[in-house]
Amino acid sequence: MMTQLQEKDLRYIWHPCAQMKDYEQFPPKVIVRGEGVWLYDEQGQRYLDAVSSWWVNLFGHANQRLSQVLAQQAQTLEHTIFANFTHLPAIEVAERLVRLTPQGLNKVFFADNGSAAIEVALKMSFQYHAQKNKTRKKRFLALTNAYHGETIGALSVGGVDLYNEVYTPLLLDTVRSQGPDCYRCPFQQQPSHCQAQCIEFVERDLQQHHEEITAVIIEPLIQAAAGMKMYPPIYLKKLRALCTTYDVHLIADEIAVGFGRTGSLFACEQADISPDFLCLSKGITGGYLPLSVVVTTNDVYEAFYDDYQTMKAFLHSHSYTGNTLACRIAQEVLTMFEDENVMDMVQEKGAMLRRQAETAFCDLPYVGEYRQIGLVGAIELVVDKTTKQPFPSEERIGYHIYKEALEKGLLIRPLGNILYFMPPYTITEEEMTFMVTTTKDTLVNFFAERELV
Amino acid sequence: MMTQLQEKDLRYIWHPCAQMKDYEQFPPKVIVRGEGVWLYDEQGQRYLDAVSSWWVNLFGHANQRLSQVLAQQAQTLEHTIFANFTHLPAIEVAERLVRLTPQGLNKVFFADNGSAAIEVALKMSFQYHAQKNKTRKKRFLALTNAYHGETIGALSVGGVDLYNEVYTPLLLDTVRSQGPDCYRCPFQQQPSHCQAQCIEFVERDLQQHHEEITAVIIEPLIQAAAGMKMYPPIYLKKLRALCTTYDVHLIADEIAVGFGRTGSLFACEQADISPDFLCLSKGITGGYLPLSVVVTTNDVYEAFYDDYQTMKAFLHSHSYTGNTLACRIAQEVLTMFEDENVMDMVQEKGAMLRRQAETAFCDLPYVGEYRQIGLVGAIELVVDKTTKQPFPSEERIGYHIYKEALEKGLLIRPLGNILYFMPPYTITEEEMTFMVTTTKDTLVNFFAERELV
Repeated sequence: MMTQLQEKDLRYIWHPCAQMKDYEQFPPKVIVRGEGVWLYDEQGQRYLDAVSSWWVNLFGHANQRLSQVLAQQAQTLEHTIFANFTHLPAIEVAERLVRLTPQGLNKVFFADNGSAAIEVALKMSFQYHAQKNKTRKKRFLALTNAYHGETIGALSVGGVDLYNEVYTPLLLDTVRSQGPDCYRCPFQQQPSHCQAQCIEFVERDLQQHHEEITAVIIEPLIQAAAGMKMYPPIYLKKLRALCTTYDVHLIADEIAVGFGRTGSLFACEQADISPDFLCLSKGITGGYLPLSVVVTTNDVYEAFYDDYQTMKAFLHSHSYTGNTLACRIAQEVLTMFEDENVMDMVQEKGAMLRRQAETAFCDLPYVGEYRQIGLVGAIELVVDKTTKQPFPSEERIGYHIYKEALEKGLLIRPLGNILYFMPPYTITEEEMTFMVTTTKDTLVNFFAERELV
Repeated sequence: MMTQLQEKDLRYIWHPCAQMKDYEQFPPKVIVRGEGVWLYDEQGQRYLDAVSSWWVNLFGHANQRLSQVLAQQAQTLEHTIFANFTHLPAIEVAERLVRLTPQGLNKVFFADNGSAAIEVALKMSFQYHAQKNKTRKKRFLALTNAYHGETIGALSVGGVDLYNEVYTPLLLDTVRSQGPDCYRCPFQQQPSHCQAQCIEFVERDLQQHHEEITAVIIEPLIQAAAGMKMYPPIYLKKLRALCTTYDVHLIADEIAVGFGRTGSLFACEQADISPDFLCLSKGITGGYLPLSVVVTTNDVYEAFYDDYQTMKAFLHSHSYTGNTLACRIAQEVLTMFEDENVMDMVQEKGAMLRRQAETAFCDLPYVGEYRQIGLVGAIELVVDKTTKQPFPSEERIGYHIYKEALEKGLLIRPLGNILYFMPPYTITEEEMTFMVTTTKDTLVNFFAERELV
């Protein structure tokens, strides 16, 4: 039985990332307010947002501090054109980002969403080489299982078939290298000890194609959309060295993992590397507003810096580039990282999650692996723990578990057979216990009933 | 002499759509507050925002009504994941858009910015035909002088060399048809009487390539970024008929012209047509926040509506798709269109602008044409009114005039040799007089000094 609002929603709205026919049986929850980790629907039922609303929320919903600065900013200046004009929130955000991101990243270019940030980095890298007369460099190298967004350029460097297979005729001819796969490591290594032998796949492709390649793009430490596939920092360290050797840019897509998610402010820090382009979005506004940035080097900036008549400028723009309201929120988020010891909080919550989750999940028969970096924890469900055989995707195991957990007041949204936790950093111990135990109960029930069928 | 904030800005920020070296002589204005049509910088100098901050602002800066609903919404719910979840502001926006847009447009898909909306429409059209087994349809047809955004897909259907030439190796193989060019009409017609003979260029290309073409994309009535090139509704009417004949979608990009700019709520209304996809952004939030939508037909929607296992879903998403704060503003903007007789206001201000501008500009020797639709007025500067010879782009006529106008407190931002007015709808008669006379004074001085050199 649907509510009037649910009916209206389905009459007019085409939701993202969904087969709309699924909504017939499973209509959308109409959320009327948020508070901390909780979302409340029109009937007063609440859901713990264990995925931070697609990995964007850091400090809870309807956060008082953020809402207050937003209201103040809106009374003063909501937005201004960002060509030949600027404003204090953008300047503050840029200054802090340059200070906080890995050394050598000095210039901040603004955009509106993650995909746009990726497109900016791809275009900048390509144009950089064109302006250095390296006109053979027209291709990008990306990893299997990568996800970098959904616009044509971003999709072209993605490697998750679910998202890009149907669009193949529209996509760029990307060099696709086999990426790390630690759970099913082809070299039978353990992440804790490995020397990233699997970098040899990229190395071979760079050796062969480096003259055509302008940039390598990677999600540092976690290939998120592919199912929270995690790999150790040494892989990044070796990749950085290879990019330098082969005169190829390194684009680090920290859209999902930046701003503390992995236990360090940026994932690249754990490998002690600096990329040539760092793409950030999602958490940058604490889950409030669309905003993204690309932070790059003086070397890149200077390749575009010349007299106007040379036509070397980077002309990319979006109407709302540098939006004042979004920048004001980002400014406050960055201040919170400094004022409130956010990284200590992430460390502490991460340790708490690990304790709880390992206890809850590791011994379950259909849990192939529980893995975690920072405050991202993932459960990989398998038919058989020894063979690691995955459940067939057409069974939609994750989807069914998702629906059952939702009935219990928990919003997880699995990626295929991988359930994961990526809660707001402000989650309390009690809430975390609810999240873990509800997931466990749902899992146990689900598989018990499945056995009976 | 730069201020500290200007220096800091240039140390950290890479501005959009700019040769940053220009900023050495012309540092960015640091805006600290906005009020109505005015932007105030750190020294208290004010600038009349005659371009609505890149065509986004409708009701003035720091609009009290919009700021108030934003503050309220932020206290309740700032954002929620939009897959399997929804909220009242999105539902209200979608319902109103379906009611207000041309007949037959029934489903609303949300994104964050204009480029993303274009990419959604291109991908939907392509996938629609793929799912109808029309797998030869892999190309798009776009017009010369078109502008549809800056991500790789959007850029591929653009026709302004300034933005896309350097990226040619990355772009899709688009069928490019000669579009309308009313000021320099190849058939020597007047827009007021013409029957859009120039549609024959598109017709010929459709005849030849329709089996490969999935969609035609167009900016209805005004090719904005190309220099506010205007053309009559009959062109759109004939194009719609051709698209139907040749089984090709029509994508109407009303990102710049939607929400009243052309004197009707949507430009397509003036041609009495419905496109298959209507892309909207910019004014949708009154200039507050990034948000975009694609409104499409039930026919398109149904081609994706099937059992999950058929894998026909449209999986495109952005993290902030359906952002609650942006939707709440859009909801209020749409309410304002209903409550405040906005279209009457646009008509009245449009007539006022026409009177003032025609008197001011038409007799100047270097003004080839003053043209206007709705509340968009454009002055095309030429070397010679008879031959219509343009000023060489390397002279940067528009740029120099822009800088001089800014010193006088007027923000226009010409497109090459075309100066234009696209002010917030709330501009008063007095402010409009300031805008027109300041432009005229700047022009007269500029050309007088130029003669002396």
